[in-house]
Amino acid sequence: MGYNVAILGATGAVGLEFLKLFEKRSFPIGELRLLASARSAGRELMYSGKAHPVEEVTARAFQGIDFAFFSAGASRSREWCQTALDAGCRVIDNSSAYRMDPSVPLVVPEVNRDTLKADTRLVANPNCTAAILLMAIAPLRKLGALDRLIISTYQSASGAGAQAMEELEQQTAATLRGEILQPKILPHPYAFNLFSHNTEIGPDGQNDEERKVAEESRKILSDQNLKFNVTCVRVPVMRAHSISATIEFKGPAPELESIFDVLDGSPGVRIVHNPAQNHFPMPIEASGQDEVLVGRIRHDLSNSNAVCLFISGDQLLKGAALNAVQIAESMIASGLVPLRVSSS
Amino acid sequence: MGYNVAILGATGAVGLEFLKLFEKRSFPIGELRLLASARSAGRELMYSGKAHPVEEVTARAFQGIDFAFFSAGASRSREWCQTALDAGCRVIDNSSAYRMDPSVPLVVPEVNRDTLKADTRLVANPNCTAAILLMAIAPLRKLGALDRLIISTYQSASGAGAQAMEELEQQTAATLRGEILQPKILPHPYAFNLFSHNTEIGPDGQNDEERKVAEESRKILSDQNLKFNVTCVRVPVMRAHSISATIEFKGPAPELESIFDVLDGSPGVRIVHNPAQNHFPMPIEASGQDEVLVGRIRHDLSNSNAVCLFISGDQLLKGAALNAVQIAESMIASGLVPLRVSSS
Repeated sequence: MGYNVAILGATGAVGLEFLKLFEKRSFPIGELRLLASARSAGRELMYSGKAHPVEEVTARAFQGIDFAFFSAGASRSREWCQTALDAGCRVIDNSSAYRMDPSVPLVVPEVNRDTLKADTRLVANPNCTAAILLMAIAPLRKLGALDRLIISTYQSASGAGAQAMEELEQQTAATLRGEILQPKILPHPYAFNLFSHNTEIGPDGQNDEERKVAEESRKILSDQNLKFNVTCVRVPVMRAHSISATIEFKGPAPELESIFDVLDGSPGVRIVHNPAQNHFPMPIEASGQDEVLVGRIRHDLSNSNAVCLFISGDQLLKGAALNAVQIAESMIASGLVPLRVSSS
Repeated sequence: MGYNVAILGATGAVGLEFLKLFEKRSFPIGELRLLASARSAGRELMYSGKAHPVEEVTARAFQGIDFAFFSAGASRSREWCQTALDAGCRVIDNSSAYRMDPSVPLVVPEVNRDTLKADTRLVANPNCTAAILLMAIAPLRKLGALDRLIISTYQSASGAGAQAMEELEQQTAATLRGEILQPKILPHPYAFNLFSHNTEIGPDGQNDEERKVAEESRKILSDQNLKFNVTCVRVPVMRAHSISATIEFKGPAPELESIFDVLDGSPGVRIVHNPAQNHFPMPIEASGQDEVLVGRIRHDLSNSNAVCLFISGDQLLKGAALNAVQIAESMIASGLVPLRVSSS
């Protein structure tokens, strides 16, 4: 008894996290199909102590599947989404392809699981920075209406995929040997360096990542008037994104005590705020963790309506695979997906 | 013919930069005295093709010196400053000891060299982040009155000294070998990590670095009402600080073209802003450069009074040694320090 699950992009950085999460969370899997491009087909991946073959994605591969997790980029998602839907799958898409489609729910379960309906077949999983940011920001709406978010990010290599993580590692090793290794995956040297996020800059001066954070956050929060000032920066960190955030409320900033209380009671959030030990959220402590870490909780000395936070969250988990699995779990818990009694 | 110069803290990361700068800029040196604690005395440092001995600092060491550059921390500065002044030195102090003393000019020459007077004997060199920030911000005052700065930093190892740079290098090498090297200089693991700046957190939630950036910037700009929201973060980068800055004006934000014009004509500033190539200021390109790099010049989409910038500057140069040497050069150029005709 369980759900038949397919992963498109199974061999990628996010794909591998799905397998770990299914085991760790005892996700009720009937059949598991690992799908990838022809280039990766033929490999085997371990799941639940057993080697599973990676198959080339075809229309047939989606037959009999309940949940198809897509994590192979926006163009692959556009190529295969309708096929998977036609085959009767629920598709949970990690790419940007459908996120801003008004007919597709864009979901962080802790924030807006209520947008998942009985007839939902396609769900978009948000941009990693938006998901991690909203875990800390959304609960604060209990304390007052939000007016404006001012955000600078410290984004990890994993957001650019497994090859970018490898590039960071190899380039750093080369630098320490006194050698220069030309970047291939990312546009700039990455070892002991940082750079503006490697996405296209639009006419308004924003890059695509910054635009996604603003647009997607507004959609998830159902707040089209929320103002965003976002600066996205890639730093030489492996797999957790960090965010320096200033939150301006429409009225006076809440007491710090009530912010601690609200965040302390928020599922998926862990407060890491120890001024005496100078211990606040750090990417190495967020890595591998389901929870998003929040700290440096303080009033903005330049605006009595505002507070500041520092946030770290695992880009591959809450920023990607974990959130997608939680979407499927939410659909199951709400009775939106009938359990398959016997999977062939 | 020249000026007799002493460096207190000659063997530190900043001390070594002084020697390179004196050569590169043909600083008119008569006699050069390299001073340090007893622990470092006896070493030799190369200057102008000649080995110079490092002496232990004593009261005698300041006799006959025109310029004493102090770069050995605030407590050393407090210990030796009066002695050096009594011996007739001009003291240019890199530490925080005297920066907020109302009787001591705190100087970034491009911004407020006019605070150097004929009777100035002690000059404070600002916090590295403040100096780098103001190179980009101060020129914008030509375009309108500033109201508020919102700043998140990406600070390098060099700000914590030569040993912190070594720790970053060794810890990174260990991590790549799969080993763990416990931090000794900085409070947290640094390899592929980042953390809130390692200075004490005050009751208002600011750490000391954040407080310095705000207080010192206000003093240098002679603008006690300028509002600051500062978040200081240490990133695994060797020697250049980067800053994500939002500048709110009291009135509508200037046209971008006029910002480019003003920054383009500002000494010590280089615009690095190429959206088509996704090329903006980066620490590896700022390292070793006298100029502060400024780019990502854009309007703040969340506030029509504001603009955003991204800044990178060498922490050891404009953030420390270069600015101090420029202070001495400004005093010489203004005729504030008589040239010594024969140095014994």
